Amino acid sequence: MARPTPLSGFPEWLPAERAVETHVLDVLRRTFELHGFAGIETRAVEPVEELLRKGETSKEVYAVSRLHDEDGASSEKRLGLHFDLTVPLARYVLEHAGKLVFPFKRYQIQKVWRGERPQEGRFREFTQADVDVVGSETLPFHYEVELPLVMAEALSTLPIPPVRIAVNNRKIAEGFYTGIGLTDVEGALRAIDKLAKIGPDAVAELLEKDAGATPEQARQALELAAVNGIDASVAERVRALGVSTPLLEEGLSELVALVEAAEERVPGTVVADLSIARGLDYYTGSVYETTLVGHEDLGSICSGGRYDSLASDGSRTYPGVGLSIGVSRLVARILGAGLATASRAVPTAVLVAVGSEEERRRSEDVAAALRARGIPTDVAPTAAKFGKQIRHADRLGIPFVWFPGAEGDEVKDIRSGDQAPADPASWAPPAEDLLPSVQRT
Amino acid sequence: MARPTPLSGFPEWLPAERAVETHVLDVLRRTFELHGFAGIETRAVEPVEELLRKGETSKEVYAVSRLHDEDGASSEKRLGLHFDLTVPLARYVLEHAGKLVFPFKRYQIQKVWRGERPQEGRFREFTQADVDVVGSETLPFHYEVELPLVMAEALSTLPIPPVRIAVNNRKIAEGFYTGIGLTDVEGALRAIDKLAKIGPDAVAELLEKDAGATPEQARQALELAAVNGIDASVAERVRALGVSTPLLEEGLSELVALVEAAEERVPGTVVADLSIARGLDYYTGSVYETTLVGHEDLGSICSGGRYDSLASDGSRTYPGVGLSIGVSRLVARILGAGLATASRAVPTAVLVAVGSEEERRRSEDVAAALRARGIPTDVAPTAAKFGKQIRHADRLGIPFVWFPGAEGDEVKDIRSGDQAPADPASWAPPAEDLLPSVQRT
Repeated sequence: MARPTPLSGFPEWLPAERAVETHVLDVLRRTFELHGFAGIETRAVEPVEELLRKGETSKEVYAVSRLHDEDGASSEKRLGLHFDLTVPLARYVLEHAGKLVFPFKRYQIQKVWRGERPQEGRFREFTQADVDVVGSETLPFHYEVELPLVMAEALSTLPIPPVRIAVNNRKIAEGFYTGIGLTDVEGALRAIDKLAKIGPDAVAELLEKDAGATPEQARQALELAAVNGIDASVAERVRALGVSTPLLEEGLSELVALVEAAEERVPGTVVADLSIARGLDYYTGSVYETTLVGHEDLGSICSGGRYDSLASDGSRTYPGVGLSIGVSRLVARILGAGLATASRAVPTAVLVAVGSEEERRRSEDVAAALRARGIPTDVAPTAAKFGKQIRHADRLGIPFVWFPGAEGDEVKDIRSGDQAPADPASWAPPAEDLLPSVQRT
Repeated sequence: MARPTPLSGFPEWLPAERAVETHVLDVLRRTFELHGFAGIETRAVEPVEELLRKGETSKEVYAVSRLHDEDGASSEKRLGLHFDLTVPLARYVLEHAGKLVFPFKRYQIQKVWRGERPQEGRFREFTQADVDVVGSETLPFHYEVELPLVMAEALSTLPIPPVRIAVNNRKIAEGFYTGIGLTDVEGALRAIDKLAKIGPDAVAELLEKDAGATPEQARQALELAAVNGIDASVAERVRALGVSTPLLEEGLSELVALVEAAEERVPGTVVADLSIARGLDYYTGSVYETTLVGHEDLGSICSGGRYDSLASDGSRTYPGVGLSIGVSRLVARILGAGLATASRAVPTAVLVAVGSEEERRRSEDVAAALRARGIPTDVAPTAAKFGKQIRHADRLGIPFVWFPGAEGDEVKDIRSGDQAPADPASWAPPAEDLLPSVQRT
């Protein structure tokens, strides 16, 4: 077999890189569990017709078929790999509703797949970390405040720059647009979504051409999109535009409640930004977009919102609110931009040297004693010269090499060269060396 | 959407069940890391031609294709989902050899997929947990002793009955068969593999019919397969059959070294069983098969062996030894047979009650204080009557409910009904209630 080449869009990490990713995943899990979210996993596949229900043409689906059954002779349902963790959550909730306690708070960290064109340089396989709360029939608004704060806390404990969570509310856009007589709400949102890319003049044209807006309606929609802030002044500025509908007022009071609570809990993180339009076509309340300060080119690293109907089985409706972190994209940036590194590529804190193959058993005993006290330990692969065994430890970043001796053992910190007598029944490395750590660089 | 039905072969767990699986995965990871294995993940897909290299017809491959590209117009390589973690490991080692330190010790816990016929009731998606050591050009024998002991330690810390690891060595079978002039070694192994199922008489027939054995050779092969034991007597009994070749002797000394070391480290766990034939067609040294005592119907829950050439790029060969645990099958048995349960379905140790929606902020403050000290905490979904809030905690298995009060807070153990004053800055649950635990039942 010739040396294989990477597959475009399918990222894979070397051990030291994977250690950084594992740290990220551990921190996320820990934060989600501290907030009472239960972890679940769903199968990787869903029926293709369910994956395509919402007309997800932009997220190309990978179909899956048994290699020995490609003539389609099978009567089985056609399956595809999930492209997010929301479609599977909706299905899981419907399938298991009778056995779940609502509101159902779950986190889910899994791979997803998207058949993107490879030339776009996007990931075709990547890990997402989602938190959602799903209610049965009702779901209190306060979860729309709590969920982004959980993510803000999780992201603040990662070795990354600060984040900025921009929030908006579907009710504001819909309430305002209908208040000014602009009835093609989705069309208007699609135009506003291009604001950062093409600027206000071109968006005004689009609003008129595609969303049926008058020049005055276009001007008003752009004025709404220009509003942002972190407190009640946001609502004041919108009201100053002279439009008022019950839905708009509801949206404004929700948005203000969200940014004010956020400003108390995680100051400087959450900002209302009424130009946010992405997702407003399917979310029904709050929406969230998160950028990494100084890395805005990454796009949103954590997005989500509220659905009044995440799922419905005809007799019962399940509203939900949640956010999803694009873990692979974040880790790729941490690694690519050198934002953080792992202290070593292996879990091992101690390498026990082997004097001769006849004495390997003695070294194994030392390792067993250290492991029994929770110290990750390895034994040298061969009874090479000690210099070579130390180099092996050094290449892996293992900080300590242990030398069993007839007249007592010694342990060497190979970074400082310090060597001292040690007893495997009691010696321990400094706390910071026990496990690999991930440090900002 | 009507209520969805499960997909046969794609297991999915409820939160309390997933808590058991998570415990299993955490224990495995912890053990592997204590022994110095670095965790990696590989992409879910490999080129189909690589998946089929070894003629893996029995493990049906799931092919993957972009739904919008099914006319095959794409010039991209055809991809399939990996059916184990060994093929990806071999590819990973070849692809990244220049950046790995050998011997490369890695663990890998991931989903794999097999397009089994659904009527066989087998899993089509399941989690495997693998440990392997891969050398560059050489790999010392001592790893063939250490790897099954790592798995024995990992399995012994799970909430399952004791395991029995049966071991054999390809060199014994090959050395013995060629010593008696039976040259179709693979054919003979295929016949011996059926011993437990069809008995010695039928196997003797197969040996003669399919492997070209004389009646005398068939008798001798069956005598070899009858040998088992946990010490050097195994070698004595084989030698007493009157056959001796250098390869046989090498295999015997390896097998005895393995069972004797195991008997010292994990007494009563590892046994030499010369009837083990599965895998001897591709492994080149030790082979391992693990059964759960009292659950032998499950088949092997942890198998593996030594490959002299796990991978090769033409100029360099990478020998390896490893074992793989079928986690999903094991967890399905733990759950199905009620071997263990999680103490609760959620991570939450404390539910903070909410007196009224106006006072929710007060409850959120208590929750934040508890979380800051590592106590998983949730806040009641609504300001319902306290009785209803307590029932919500009870349904989730949350042991404590916290009541913020104007004249000081109180916390109630809802199992005992005991209620006492508590300060969120200092109160902690008993250690055994802090996190969910998994107990044998």
